[in-house]
Amino acid sequence: MKTVLIGSGNVAYHLAKAFHQNHIEVSQIFGRNENDLKAISDELNIPFSTIGLTDADLYIICVNDDSIAEVSKMITKENCLVAHTSGSLTKEILDGNYRKASFYPLQTFSKSKELNYAEIPFFIEAENKNDVETLKKIAFKISKNVMESDYEKRKYIHLTAVFACNFVNHLFARAKEISDSQNIPFNYFLPLIDETVSKIHEVEPKLAQTGPAVRNDGRILKIHESLISDEEHLKIYQTMNESIKKMYEL
Amino acid sequence: MKTVLIGSGNVAYHLAKAFHQNHIEVSQIFGRNENDLKAISDELNIPFSTIGLTDADLYIICVNDDSIAEVSKMITKENCLVAHTSGSLTKEILDGNYRKASFYPLQTFSKSKELNYAEIPFFIEAENKNDVETLKKIAFKISKNVMESDYEKRKYIHLTAVFACNFVNHLFARAKEISDSQNIPFNYFLPLIDETVSKIHEVEPKLAQTGPAVRNDGRILKIHESLISDEEHLKIYQTMNESIKKMYEL
Repeated sequence: MKTVLIGSGNVAYHLAKAFHQNHIEVSQIFGRNENDLKAISDELNIPFSTIGLTDADLYIICVNDDSIAEVSKMITKENCLVAHTSGSLTKEILDGNYRKASFYPLQTFSKSKELNYAEIPFFIEAENKNDVETLKKIAFKISKNVMESDYEKRKYIHLTAVFACNFVNHLFARAKEISDSQNIPFNYFLPLIDETVSKIHEVEPKLAQTGPAVRNDGRILKIHESLISDEEHLKIYQTMNESIKKMYEL
Repeated sequence: MKTVLIGSGNVAYHLAKAFHQNHIEVSQIFGRNENDLKAISDELNIPFSTIGLTDADLYIICVNDDSIAEVSKMITKENCLVAHTSGSLTKEILDGNYRKASFYPLQTFSKSKELNYAEIPFFIEAENKNDVETLKKIAFKISKNVMESDYEKRKYIHLTAVFACNFVNHLFARAKEISDSQNIPFNYFLPLIDETVSKIHEVEPKLAQTGPAVRNDGRILKIHESLISDEEHLKIYQTMNESIKKMYEL
């Protein structure tokens, strides 16, 4: 089976590396940015091109959501499988007469950060069972967590990730505004943050909840509200506390 | 200098261990629960008692907020220093004719989890400079992060911790409700969560923000709102997205 990766960004780099580490041959890595492609090619010993897509059975498109449709048109071959790696797009965004699929790794990728690929969940969708099995087999060579997932399910995966990651990061950003206002270095909170996350590897988050709201400690909640001067902080503070109280029926 | 620790719970255990590891002598560990005390005593080779407080220069009270005042009355000696370890109480809660202080380690403690004490920030408050210096010296033997902090500042530290930890954990709990509703194992999100936290060790959270709100991707925000059936989820979704948009002036 001949496989081509398309793209030269963070996802392309890490997928290429994951394939390489797990002895899945990649025939070519194809993209626009010659410098980035050459760096990947040199590190992982994969041929690259910026001009001609080589013939393959499987093309995996690892480019920005906005460019997937455009890039997918370059594949004119019909008897092949084409997958994109986006969490929020249907496989039908792919624009060609080939078989269409989604090959979605749930992770946030930065070139400079090493990742343990075995832990990255892959969500697979394709038009027929054979293609699902093919993509699953590849994903299972990389990771122990592989699931079939249609677009309906993928939307909820993305929504979950927004709560568990995008919103969590925003809480860190808002928390830092508070500690900055008191000249307390935000890195003082990192051990506590690390431990908060470390705990949910062992305990379900609902059972790990601590803090004034879950203790229904109205005295502290009032003190905190009186300390908050920023309107957005106050909205977050009240929304989150109300939600905690609802969850524990307080 | 003779030091006594009072308490047999998570904080007492970890402080005793941190003292032991850093060769700070503890003359006695005192509390109500003989089994717990004996376990700490056996592990760390510290004498314990449930009956009589031994004479000391420094008593550190590591019991629940609700019990601190009561326990502090047991110390009848006057020429000594007494500190509690609570983040949310004034040192004046201590009820006796001794010098009063706060010795606050910013961390969430569980007996079963090993901690790197050198990373735990300690916040110190006392009535006079000498006592501040004494407590700082002890804290610096354990940790590299030690700060003086009066009650005003300590309130903001606690508020920051509520945003960065209590609320973060609640987002995990709410996120799990969404993934559970689709039969997606929540542990599939742990690598993404780990990476989200790992990033803010290197990048300031405001600069690490990703997701549909900061991209101002109204299409995805609408799709997500249509997926959410729970009222609390929707309130959180909207409050957090509005806050993100305000932060980046979108």
